[in-house]
Amino acid sequence: MTEIELITKLTADLPTDESVLTGTGDDCAVLNLGGQTLLFKTDAIVEDIHFERDTPPEQIGRKALARALSDIAAMAGTPTHALVTLGRCENHDPEHLVKIYDGLKSHAAEHAVNIVGGEVTTLPKLTLSISLLGTVGKPVLRSGSQTGDALFVSGELGGSLAEHHLTFEPRLAEARWLAQTFNIHAMIDLSDGLATDLRHLLSENIGAELRSPAIPISCAAKLAAKENPSSKTALLAALTDGEDYELLFTVSPKDAVAVLDGWKAQFPDTPLHCIGKITNTRGITLRDEKSARTLTLHGYDHLEQS
Amino acid sequence: MTEIELITKLTADLPTDESVLTGTGDDCAVLNLGGQTLLFKTDAIVEDIHFERDTPPEQIGRKALARALSDIAAMAGTPTHALVTLGRCENHDPEHLVKIYDGLKSHAAEHAVNIVGGEVTTLPKLTLSISLLGTVGKPVLRSGSQTGDALFVSGELGGSLAEHHLTFEPRLAEARWLAQTFNIHAMIDLSDGLATDLRHLLSENIGAELRSPAIPISCAAKLAAKENPSSKTALLAALTDGEDYELLFTVSPKDAVAVLDGWKAQFPDTPLHCIGKITNTRGITLRDEKSARTLTLHGYDHLEQS
Repeated sequence: MTEIELITKLTADLPTDESVLTGTGDDCAVLNLGGQTLLFKTDAIVEDIHFERDTPPEQIGRKALARALSDIAAMAGTPTHALVTLGRCENHDPEHLVKIYDGLKSHAAEHAVNIVGGEVTTLPKLTLSISLLGTVGKPVLRSGSQTGDALFVSGELGGSLAEHHLTFEPRLAEARWLAQTFNIHAMIDLSDGLATDLRHLLSENIGAELRSPAIPISCAAKLAAKENPSSKTALLAALTDGEDYELLFTVSPKDAVAVLDGWKAQFPDTPLHCIGKITNTRGITLRDEKSARTLTLHGYDHLEQS
Repeated sequence: MTEIELITKLTADLPTDESVLTGTGDDCAVLNLGGQTLLFKTDAIVEDIHFERDTPPEQIGRKALARALSDIAAMAGTPTHALVTLGRCENHDPEHLVKIYDGLKSHAAEHAVNIVGGEVTTLPKLTLSISLLGTVGKPVLRSGSQTGDALFVSGELGGSLAEHHLTFEPRLAEARWLAQTFNIHAMIDLSDGLATDLRHLLSENIGAELRSPAIPISCAAKLAAKENPSSKTALLAALTDGEDYELLFTVSPKDAVAVLDGWKAQFPDTPLHCIGKITNTRGITLRDEKSARTLTLHGYDHLEQS
């Protein structure tokens, strides 16, 4: 059983009623509670997967919260309240844990997130799980892309493990501004890499065409490719490295120029690129002046060329 | 640094604003979101601590949710939406996980709880963490006991590890009925044992006197004491075993008879006992016809006698 098959089985026949506007399968659950639209999300980071033993502890705490904030951003919401579950060995250095929480609390304060409780439990691997509540006007879902839509991505992609995965800024203000100013059709935050996460905006009859020269490649990805020519190319890194925590969204082509101009005025320090368009052909095509390739595999898998 | 000192350090200077009606230190956080009062709680169970490898999987899933529901009950709330975080080894038998979720989903459906998402992550020990949202009219807090109050406990205590910790019914309906019918001063659910959890209803100038013959001892605790006379007495088991998930609450003495009579009519199959009273002397005194002892130590620690 693959992980996707397992999750499909686990989430089959979940008990839900009409208060659940969006359940599993989007960046957050969307709930109607007493007429108010709430976002509800949980996200865990684990030692040796999401951080290393020698990662600066303040950055561990910061990352745990920032990842969940990025999911709230992907719905154009505002995070409000968090619970923190800490799993650690009983002999784990308490001062290290205090520093982790310092990073977490400081990042929460930056984003006006209330930390309202949680628990400390015993686990063989250091683990931080964040439960997050947020509010939202009209949430932007992953579904909603239409043929012909322009496809945008914020920031630059790839090479995140060098530093970005610990220092990224969740795009909360950017996403809210987008949703308040334009009719954003679909949005997601990039955690597993463009080649994987873009697929969540597509469906059986909705595909995408990427213009490969337009894909913004981070300095870190370019540097890594230069230093180690036998590893993947910088473009492939940008497509598949993951942990970018940038916004990927679609809008009507008639809004594309206004989105670019408005963004540049609002967020002059953060790049925004139109990297392609939504098509009515299943799958993802990667196109440059000379060739068109099919991105057939996900995230960290290798790129097949046709 | 003890666990309590660690938690005190971790939860110092938490960022909070006026939307947080009750933060850390009660059974759930109590939030004001858009004029609505919400309960927010997270609780994790871990293999070899809260269940064994050979515990029936459906009961593992059920217990994970039921523990969090019991915390909602302790505030007299109604659970509405849950997220599930599953940590497991990558080679963990998927069919076992599916059965765990079957137990969880079935218990959620019983209590009209929507399961709206979560995640699957990799951990060396099987772990289930539940994030739970609920609604409440006027929450019953742990604080609020007054000198002279009658102290009640539902069910029977002790010996929970034999079976009860996997099969208990969270006292949601009972707690809501209590809060709707009477002015309940303070309430908590018993997870660490009466001798520990009762302390959360007390303060510097508020103590309790327990009438030891009135403490309801479960059959399982009596049986265990009989089978192994060298282990703790049945009374001590009832005071300290933990995992009872019963309601402990205080009301004005003038309401005590009405509470007992009303409960008997509403919940004839669930015992309710008045086990003592709130005093203006710090600490807990355990009294019978012949002696008065001081319960000086918590939960699983041994009982000192004066």
